[in-house]
Amino acid sequence: MITSNSNARIRQLALWQTKAKERRAAGVFLAEGFKMFLEAPEEKIREVYLSEDVVQKVQEHSEMREKLKRTGFETVTPGVFRKISDTLTPQGILCVITRMEYRLEELLAVPKPVFVVLENLQDPGNLGTVMRTGEGAGITGIIMNTGTVDIYNPKTIRATMGSVYRVPFVYEEDLCGTVRLLRERGIRTYAAHLGGEKAYDRFSYREGTAFLIGNEGRGLSPELAAEADNFLKIPMEGRVESLNAAVSAALLMYEAHRQRQ
Amino acid sequence: MITSNSNARIRQLALWQTKAKERRAAGVFLAEGFKMFLEAPEEKIREVYLSEDVVQKVQEHSEMREKLKRTGFETVTPGVFRKISDTLTPQGILCVITRMEYRLEELLAVPKPVFVVLENLQDPGNLGTVMRTGEGAGITGIIMNTGTVDIYNPKTIRATMGSVYRVPFVYEEDLCGTVRLLRERGIRTYAAHLGGEKAYDRFSYREGTAFLIGNEGRGLSPELAAEADNFLKIPMEGRVESLNAAVSAALLMYEAHRQRQ
Repeated sequence: MITSNSNARIRQLALWQTKAKERRAAGVFLAEGFKMFLEAPEEKIREVYLSEDVVQKVQEHSEMREKLKRTGFETVTPGVFRKISDTLTPQGILCVITRMEYRLEELLAVPKPVFVVLENLQDPGNLGTVMRTGEGAGITGIIMNTGTVDIYNPKTIRATMGSVYRVPFVYEEDLCGTVRLLRERGIRTYAAHLGGEKAYDRFSYREGTAFLIGNEGRGLSPELAAEADNFLKIPMEGRVESLNAAVSAALLMYEAHRQRQ
Repeated sequence: MITSNSNARIRQLALWQTKAKERRAAGVFLAEGFKMFLEAPEEKIREVYLSEDVVQKVQEHSEMREKLKRTGFETVTPGVFRKISDTLTPQGILCVITRMEYRLEELLAVPKPVFVVLENLQDPGNLGTVMRTGEGAGITGIIMNTGTVDIYNPKTIRATMGSVYRVPFVYEEDLCGTVRLLRERGIRTYAAHLGGEKAYDRFSYREGTAFLIGNEGRGLSPELAAEADNFLKIPMEGRVESLNAAVSAALLMYEAHRQRQ
């Protein structure tokens, strides 16, 4: 059992919890909580840490117990667990997971895909919610520029509720170039844009589709918006100027889902 | 100019920022930022505080300048402003606003209303997002139980992006009784529920409608769900068990909006 905060592995975990660069260098991310452990692909789990006060409880849950037998785990004191946890009320289980690796070409090989393209999304909770909703709506994957928040941010991971294990995603340096590539591959691109005149439910998304969603405050850059085939409008009553980015994405993804049923 | 954190008004503002009870007792809430000041109904603005470092900038914005002339304002040092601000990067303007007061009977007087009924929603950001999206979708109002997070929580206020000034809402002690009352008034009630078999876009929301949305983790209580006329299903692919509460509410509110156009 690890009892000291100055243990080298504990210091490493605390760094991974807070520093995107450190996580990237090691090719890992951290996932906390029972659900995130249970849904983690077993071959991706590198290390598991249990707080001493949940060991008993976890052993009483048969699926958890069997999975822990296979992955192995290390026990730490509750005080040490608080040091490596990102939450105020930790569930007492934390895993180190090998990062997913997807290539854009793999995603493009899917027939009639639905993509969400995110430009400079900044809120970790929004990104996680887009991913969770995206799995629910059956999207093919998420394409982001490198200015978008780190998908492996602990808050993002938590907000995905496990979808991070299952929804493919790629980060691209040149999102304008990527959108041009999508168009070359016959995928229709739609920008949620104040300049849109036609409501989002008036387009057909039965063919290959990509929805472009911009930054929470500033929306899409003019450069990226200019690459879109169509501007669409989400109708808004009252004095509302825009919707939350994750809400806009949800409405579009579920409209595509509705049309494809 | 107020230069000291121990000034009585500053201490009062700091209390209002953190204590729901104190805000309630005074019948006020705090709203930060330029947008929240500009959209605030003038007759509701009790006090305005400006950080010294934005006074110049604010005076250059004609709408802001004219409104400030009418409301008056107090200048504080940037250090004092940080003390009364709820954000990490304050915009330098904070208002004390008189609370809105709505009665359920007023809301029920609207013909063919669309309500969102929230039970024990806990996340301030989710509540604010429901309100912002609700204004966009043109809902009549939000009905919440007293176990739902305080709408005047600074995080909620921020997430509403100003919709808190315009979307009517009431807190009710007995939500089951309220839902029975809605039914007596001919309003159809729909619970987003795992037991739902019919997809949400297969119902008609052209008549009076109320959507019941439950707690983020636990969903609706069995007691409240039992009061609903219909269970509806939001279809979900993959391994997703539920959507974020604000996303679920958004899909339902915008489906009603779509049908009513």
